[in-house]
Amino acid sequence: MNEYKLALLGFGNVGRAFLELLTTKATEIKKRYDILLDLTGIATRSHGIVIDPGGISLSTAQSFVDLKSKTGLAHMDSVEEFLDHCSADIVVEAIPVNYLDGEPALAYLRRALQNGMHVVSANKGPVVHGYPSLTELAKKEKLKYRFESAVMDGAPIFSLWREALPALQLDSFEGILNSTTNYVLMRIEAGESFQEAIASAQQIGIAETDPSGDLEGWDAAVKAAALITVLMEIPALPQQIERVGITHLTESEIRAAADQGKRWKLVCRAKRVGNNFQASVQPEAVDSSSILFQVSGTSSVITFKSDALGDLTIIEKNPGPSTTAYGMLSDVISIATESS
Amino acid sequence: MNEYKLALLGFGNVGRAFLELLTTKATEIKKRYDILLDLTGIATRSHGIVIDPGGISLSTAQSFVDLKSKTGLAHMDSVEEFLDHCSADIVVEAIPVNYLDGEPALAYLRRALQNGMHVVSANKGPVVHGYPSLTELAKKEKLKYRFESAVMDGAPIFSLWREALPALQLDSFEGILNSTTNYVLMRIEAGESFQEAIASAQQIGIAETDPSGDLEGWDAAVKAAALITVLMEIPALPQQIERVGITHLTESEIRAAADQGKRWKLVCRAKRVGNNFQASVQPEAVDSSSILFQVSGTSSVITFKSDALGDLTIIEKNPGPSTTAYGMLSDVISIATESS
Repeated sequence: MNEYKLALLGFGNVGRAFLELLTTKATEIKKRYDILLDLTGIATRSHGIVIDPGGISLSTAQSFVDLKSKTGLAHMDSVEEFLDHCSADIVVEAIPVNYLDGEPALAYLRRALQNGMHVVSANKGPVVHGYPSLTELAKKEKLKYRFESAVMDGAPIFSLWREALPALQLDSFEGILNSTTNYVLMRIEAGESFQEAIASAQQIGIAETDPSGDLEGWDAAVKAAALITVLMEIPALPQQIERVGITHLTESEIRAAADQGKRWKLVCRAKRVGNNFQASVQPEAVDSSSILFQVSGTSSVITFKSDALGDLTIIEKNPGPSTTAYGMLSDVISIATESS
Repeated sequence: MNEYKLALLGFGNVGRAFLELLTTKATEIKKRYDILLDLTGIATRSHGIVIDPGGISLSTAQSFVDLKSKTGLAHMDSVEEFLDHCSADIVVEAIPVNYLDGEPALAYLRRALQNGMHVVSANKGPVVHGYPSLTELAKKEKLKYRFESAVMDGAPIFSLWREALPALQLDSFEGILNSTTNYVLMRIEAGESFQEAIASAQQIGIAETDPSGDLEGWDAAVKAAALITVLMEIPALPQQIERVGITHLTESEIRAAADQGKRWKLVCRAKRVGNNFQASVQPEAVDSSSILFQVSGTSSVITFKSDALGDLTIIEKNPGPSTTAYGMLSDVISIATESS
């Protein structure tokens, strides 16, 4: 039986869902993979830091958060200090994304690797802003950097390509990668105004207070850049992706398309062009002959074209914090079983 | 650099496509995985047997087959003898399926394992009729038994669950797993008679001279049984699956559905019920709100429901011998990299 100590960065919806899933699945993981996963540290922005080498239960974590104080059980001032003293085997990161430069997550992941810990990150920021340096650092330290949940939540995308599609060249992809815009467009089709649709998205917890990152296509562009960087092995920045959001669409345009049997979708497209790529994120009115037409609400979809398979499509229906948490857990198990 | 000798059983469309792909991808595989894959033996039913420890090129294999003689370069009478003397590391099997008992493929795979060779099989027969004993034998001999192409050709299904979805419990699935019926139904919708549609399917090489295995739902039932056996870990036989084929549908029924915006599909459904399962293969008229509606012609689709992810759908568009070959190659690479 191999034991792995986990340290969690961030304890929002996703972090909590991760601890819940870890608790639910512990027995099965022990039985099936002969590994013991113990959460021994949590570092948060608002609730301080807790370290307990004996293991932190779900109820302890919850009561710690409920204190709503800046100081947890461990008297530490910074995540950096936490990363230097948490003595975990795997750092699991789920803090808010920063589209611009991936910080501070990028620095945290780097520090974790430098301190000899594997890293699992649900964050797309570090993928687009630090993938080459993080993978190189991980390789040098004989550690792993995994980020399944960075795109399409828990749906297996990166692990699919890494583990199940060897020697396959990705030539292009297209898909719907942003839940918020897809949900907002569906609500407007159903009769809501733009404002109401955004409020609905905020109510179910998929849109931020400032939803412009989603609506202007930044989130989709960052995800497309992450996929190009990792799966096509061509470093890509979101700024290099032609980007048009959905804010210039009018409610009447959206409903007129619906009347004609079409649906507006914020579509990501990318293709390999020699050693480079061309990519765009922009609204398209698709008709019912397209798979994209079927994918509504918070669901997402991607179709891959490659050199040796026909079009391969993956659809993830109604993801949420618990599915993101599953993607993180799958990364943790993959690291633990490979290291055992 | 690790070298792996491959022996191929069967040299029909799939076997040939496999050797073509192996030849095309050799340099990339060498570079990326530091492994050398050499085909050193082929055993066929109609063209005899060839063994060449120095490696068999695509052109040699082709000219060997063109001889159309019962005797190849090696003077052997049986596949059994071939398996006893081919000295390969991995046996790659692509002979015709036998729905009833999986033979003779099952016996070949067993013999290959007993002789110390890993096995890759594109054959669903041995999966449903021998999965527990083959996996046990492989484990005992510290060898691998892989069969990615047995269901949905080269689309990653078994490897997805094995490698990318750890600790996930499959609760149910539904999908279209038989290309021939899906193609025949599409042609009838477009105006062909049942006879013409079957002839069309035979012309593009997806239907046998006797197409009843497809039309009566046996092929779909065997695939569903394979998925239940491996992914739900409940041994299932095709005979245990409620099965209705498409032959009782009339051309006018099929076209009437199309006029109402529906499409008949041969749908596989399976769900876990306690320690057992319930499964069926039967025609259903689905409307355009279903993902199944979109999947026409030779394409196939499966949607998985599990305990920790939302519905996860995989669609494979227009598969063929070359995509089946890719599934086999992905198994070979997976075995080689795990053993290196």
